Amino acid sequence: MIADLRELERRTGGPGGARRLCWGEEWRSARELLSELLAEVGLEAERDEAGNAWSYLEGDAEPALVLGSHLDSVPAGGWLDGALGVMAALGVLRAWREAGRRPPRTLALVDWADEEGARFGRSLFGSSAVAGSLDPAELAGARDAEGRAVAEVLAENGVDLQQAPSAQSRLGRVVAYLELHIEQGPVLEAEGIAAAAVSGCVGIERHRYRIEGQAAHAGTTPMDRRRDAALAAAEAALAIELVGAEAGGMATTGHLALEPGIATAVAGVAELTTDLRHADAEVLAAMLERARAAVEEAAAGRGCTASEQLVWRIEPTRFNAELVAAARSACAAATGSDRALTSGALHDAAEIARVRPAAMVFCPSRAGISHASEEDTAEADLAVAIEAYGLLVGRALSG
Amino acid sequence: MIADLRELERRTGGPGGARRLCWGEEWRSARELLSELLAEVGLEAERDEAGNAWSYLEGDAEPALVLGSHLDSVPAGGWLDGALGVMAALGVLRAWREAGRRPPRTLALVDWADEEGARFGRSLFGSSAVAGSLDPAELAGARDAEGRAVAEVLAENGVDLQQAPSAQSRLGRVVAYLELHIEQGPVLEAEGIAAAAVSGCVGIERHRYRIEGQAAHAGTTPMDRRRDAALAAAEAALAIELVGAEAGGMATTGHLALEPGIATAVAGVAELTTDLRHADAEVLAAMLERARAAVEEAAAGRGCTASEQLVWRIEPTRFNAELVAAARSACAAATGSDRALTSGALHDAAEIARVRPAAMVFCPSRAGISHASEEDTAEADLAVAIEAYGLLVGRALSG
Repeated sequence: MIADLRELERRTGGPGGARRLCWGEEWRSARELLSELLAEVGLEAERDEAGNAWSYLEGDAEPALVLGSHLDSVPAGGWLDGALGVMAALGVLRAWREAGRRPPRTLALVDWADEEGARFGRSLFGSSAVAGSLDPAELAGARDAEGRAVAEVLAENGVDLQQAPSAQSRLGRVVAYLELHIEQGPVLEAEGIAAAAVSGCVGIERHRYRIEGQAAHAGTTPMDRRRDAALAAAEAALAIELVGAEAGGMATTGHLALEPGIATAVAGVAELTTDLRHADAEVLAAMLERARAAVEEAAAGRGCTASEQLVWRIEPTRFNAELVAAARSACAAATGSDRALTSGALHDAAEIARVRPAAMVFCPSRAGISHASEEDTAEADLAVAIEAYGLLVGRALSG
Repeated sequence: MIADLRELERRTGGPGGARRLCWGEEWRSARELLSELLAEVGLEAERDEAGNAWSYLEGDAEPALVLGSHLDSVPAGGWLDGALGVMAALGVLRAWREAGRRPPRTLALVDWADEEGARFGRSLFGSSAVAGSLDPAELAGARDAEGRAVAEVLAENGVDLQQAPSAQSRLGRVVAYLELHIEQGPVLEAEGIAAAAVSGCVGIERHRYRIEGQAAHAGTTPMDRRRDAALAAAEAALAIELVGAEAGGMATTGHLALEPGIATAVAGVAELTTDLRHADAEVLAAMLERARAAVEEAAAGRGCTASEQLVWRIEPTRFNAELVAAARSACAAATGSDRALTSGALHDAAEIARVRPAAMVFCPSRAGISHASEEDTAEADLAVAIEAYGLLVGRALSG
């Protein structure tokens, strides 16, 4: 499987990182490699209406236990994000095929389309279509950085945006879903654990705040007469950090922009976005209240006003308790640790978990880096994580 | 004079504010109005090599006492910034002309070219050429927002950029320089003073700081493992505010930008500019040291590094003591107050003060607003300030 990943990197990577941007040429070439590898063991890939690729290895029972992840990447991404889970799923199918045995239940490999949403801003495109939560109208006006409309780009890939929700019919052949992925964070590396069960995905509250003060001349406006939106935003960002730290969650001010935004003017307007994450819905709601209050207090303290706009929100996802227990036990067999952690990032498994039992296994990310060419995991850790994932699939098949 | 200003506003203003951007059509039309008004009293305007317009009313002695300011404005500016001083100077010449008397010393009106620097980023263009501090090489690569080269735009206005420094020869006909201007800040309005002497202009230290941390995933990077450049910048901006407040000067963070600058990523890089101003050179130098230390401390406290780049600096300017005393006395006669203040903004007078005695008179700005369509001063205050300026010119002529 590691050789498959290296071959994928050779075909679609480079010094700047992976470039398997969904719906583009290199993403198609990644899928071509997958088809070649499937063909080597006598399997074919079929497309659904949302562009997901499915490959079935018939077993004694239906519906299928589905294994997979995504081949698409961010524009300058890493070699493992998504690709690891697809190649690990392929490895499981290949192992059954090469053993010449029929599995006790049909196994399916799925390569979800456009997990990253890096091109049109809508993550989890293919998996949400299958889960029944994709509304084509939400995406209809989206254009990529070159100004091309989403419907046009999808059509080039044989996908009719309006028909994408029909992919939901694939659910009829899904009994459960298992995904191996890199952690994309530093926890497992710090704890020296090569594979760990994932108990769910955090909920997210993402908001944009606009703080309005008064633009003024930097040289003629006394310090005590200013209504400086930049400084109100600075105080808000620092208060929001505490909201995350004190709740044991994450709170990030990743975007902050000033108007007029020039050296010689006190900022009249500051815009910031906050991204709050927690595994517990009630704690997340409390974090949002505290963040709101912090922004309002910072604004009011400087004679500014603040307004809020929802960017996006999602409830926390709890993975299926039995599958999580099976994943902990499989990881414990492979690593000696039954650690379970919550994913701070979203994954296709979170979409599928809405409608079917699902679980994940994580392996470490070097220095916690992902979505960058430096993304890496030691081969020894990859091997352990692939083993743990294989054990989990075995337990799910026999369970 | 107020009628002249209203006519100028009628010809070149509008709901969005004044649009006398230097070297453009409306700036030329403002100068046309000035020529018409000069012609009404039998005076002509001549251009120097830097595009400044000069008009001389011959008197008994040479060199001339020069009165003036600038007709150019920022793209959406106010009706008084610069225009007030030009029309007040015209008023003084007209008064002598209409009285049919020859002044004891030649009086000159100057309309400086491109005081604002709003188009090519170089303020005080015309006055620095006359003062001998303009280096055409510094400007050579500059382009305006439409991508047009400075040399091309100047040539359309009959100015050869390379020859602009030759305007320095006009200095031979300057004995001293007096300028009336709006304050562009809130101090005089707050103190209820219609006209005040200006004792000099602040010095400015303008720097760009780049804080480098580590870009990271907002969902997978624990709060205590981040090297968040945005939060380091927030702390730096708040510390820099204190540097200004505690030194009795100004300290502004007007520009702050993050990379990658998206909601879902901890910022790996933050760039901010600080603009520090103080009338005392030693205090200004100490402010710069404190600001530097504050940025470095904020960066180091979060595992980030900081680097500094000079954007621009200018020493404080002290106006000529005798002329400042004359301005205080003239203002006291008109208003009852001999208040003198330091200008936090730069003016053409600061350039001329390098090489000739110079002084200024300020009148209030409503709510301290300038460089905006809301810029205004009560007509009663304008009248008092014009009277004080006239008294000052009289004292300088007889001094």
